[in-house]
Amino acid sequence: MTGEAKKADGSGSDVSVLGLGAMGRELARALLDAGHRVTVWNRTAARAEPLVDKGALAAGSPAEAVGASPLTVVCLLDEDSVLDVLDGVELAGRDVVDLTNGTPGQARRVAELVRARGGGYLDGGIMAVPPMIGGPHAFLYYSGSERVFREYRALLDAFGAGHYKGADPGAAALWDVALLSAMYGMFGGVLHAFALVRSAGIDAREVAGDVGTWLAAMGAAAPEYARRIDTGDHTGDVVSNLGMQAAGIRNVLATAEEQGVSTALLSPLADFMRLRLAGGDHATEDLTGLVQLLAPGAELAAQPGAK
Amino acid sequence: MTGEAKKADGSGSDVSVLGLGAMGRELARALLDAGHRVTVWNRTAARAEPLVDKGALAAGSPAEAVGASPLTVVCLLDEDSVLDVLDGVELAGRDVVDLTNGTPGQARRVAELVRARGGGYLDGGIMAVPPMIGGPHAFLYYSGSERVFREYRALLDAFGAGHYKGADPGAAALWDVALLSAMYGMFGGVLHAFALVRSAGIDAREVAGDVGTWLAAMGAAAPEYARRIDTGDHTGDVVSNLGMQAAGIRNVLATAEEQGVSTALLSPLADFMRLRLAGGDHATEDLTGLVQLLAPGAELAAQPGAK
Repeated sequence: MTGEAKKADGSGSDVSVLGLGAMGRELARALLDAGHRVTVWNRTAARAEPLVDKGALAAGSPAEAVGASPLTVVCLLDEDSVLDVLDGVELAGRDVVDLTNGTPGQARRVAELVRARGGGYLDGGIMAVPPMIGGPHAFLYYSGSERVFREYRALLDAFGAGHYKGADPGAAALWDVALLSAMYGMFGGVLHAFALVRSAGIDAREVAGDVGTWLAAMGAAAPEYARRIDTGDHTGDVVSNLGMQAAGIRNVLATAEEQGVSTALLSPLADFMRLRLAGGDHATEDLTGLVQLLAPGAELAAQPGAK
Repeated sequence: MTGEAKKADGSGSDVSVLGLGAMGRELARALLDAGHRVTVWNRTAARAEPLVDKGALAAGSPAEAVGASPLTVVCLLDEDSVLDVLDGVELAGRDVVDLTNGTPGQARRVAELVRARGGGYLDGGIMAVPPMIGGPHAFLYYSGSERVFREYRALLDAFGAGHYKGADPGAAALWDVALLSAMYGMFGGVLHAFALVRSAGIDAREVAGDVGTWLAAMGAAAPEYARRIDTGDHTGDVVSNLGMQAAGIRNVLATAEEQGVSTALLSPLADFMRLRLAGGDHATEDLTGLVQLLAPGAELAAQPGAK
């Protein structure tokens, strides 16, 4: 192993990376490509080898890695792993950027721990799959210490464009998870669509292009949906009202039943439509009124003073 | 009412339109704009007035409308309404294009009825919201009588680009509903995302742009998903494997719980992931393996000979 001669020796590196899964490896690679001196650590040490071959230093422990650089980037499976890996590590005077995917509450707990031990903490959410890291379409949300964000912004730009979302360490995770929510909805719909055409003997590849075209056309409604939700104005100039949408999704579910495809992914939306229609005179409003059922009080939450 | 003097008088029009809801009105308008002589009928007659002002003839009954033109375009609330409206109407030698949204099975039943009475039947699915009709992004699926499709293609192009999907009258509805399925998945995800940010005091408008950018980036996976589903190859070069996706959607649901947002729209997808992971050694495969749970046998259905 060529890395043996390149153990982190305390002479210092610019940044350390804890966690070399599919994403952590790409983060370390992007830092190396940008010319930084990088120390890496992973529980399964063999994962470090290709990076050591590219010039990284391999640390023998999380403490050694954190000690090697002023900044440590953490990207592990979940926030429990972060707490576990940082357990007992000297953090005073060190800065931590935690890019592990988690909830806002989890990010706040990690922030509390790091700060209690004298470290600076910036949480981050990576809006990219690993192959996108360092490319033009990757972007990241950050929140927590603005000092850390500003001090290392140029370095962090190696991953993708950074957007700072405020001092609350949970904010980046919230934005991240909001986008993931939209994505998982879309993925569920696309898998349902492909299962449906396959059930009729049609190749998914035949319809994939039209699915993309249609999602792009219909996704253009998102800014108008957002405006309605922000203002609570669910009526007026409604292009496709709840009554029509409910008829449409009934056909979606009935077709799935005809074809032997599970209705499980889409029936909750139909249930919300039925519930909304049963709850009052809502047939002519937009689909956005459903937010009042999804998150009662959410329309009020974003009013000034309610934060 | 200016239309009184312009009742359909049997002297003939090019095309009749049954149903003047939000969509039917746009269809009739597009036909008038294209220079066709159009007869219209609607159960609530007043809806015809703006079209009569634009030159349409108003029929007093479905039978009168169908009798006025060689081709009748039907766009009603559902296929039950179509059967109801066509009840007792003379269809021999007439052609019907049914653009009412419904299931493949419903389309086949209407086709059977129209053909039994000597009419030609083409089913259609409109991939557009009403304001898009006649614009560059509207497209329609057609299936059933190829003769009807070819004979009236130029006229039907007034609505949007037409794609003929075969002699099975149910095919157009299947393609239509497949795209609607993907859309409803996406809409559910977007509503969840907006509810989530509102719950944290953030305006939906602040995140709408990023949601669009992210969905466009992640939606680019659809052709690869389609290829995997068609070939049954769910492993190899997996960008984001099921194990990682399951961790991601756990964070989505946990965040919703932290924020008081319903998990109902997205938990079925998480359930399918768990079920797939519990069913065997699937952690490193792509999300597409879930299709085997959504529609057992769907992967086989599209094999040659299985149609």
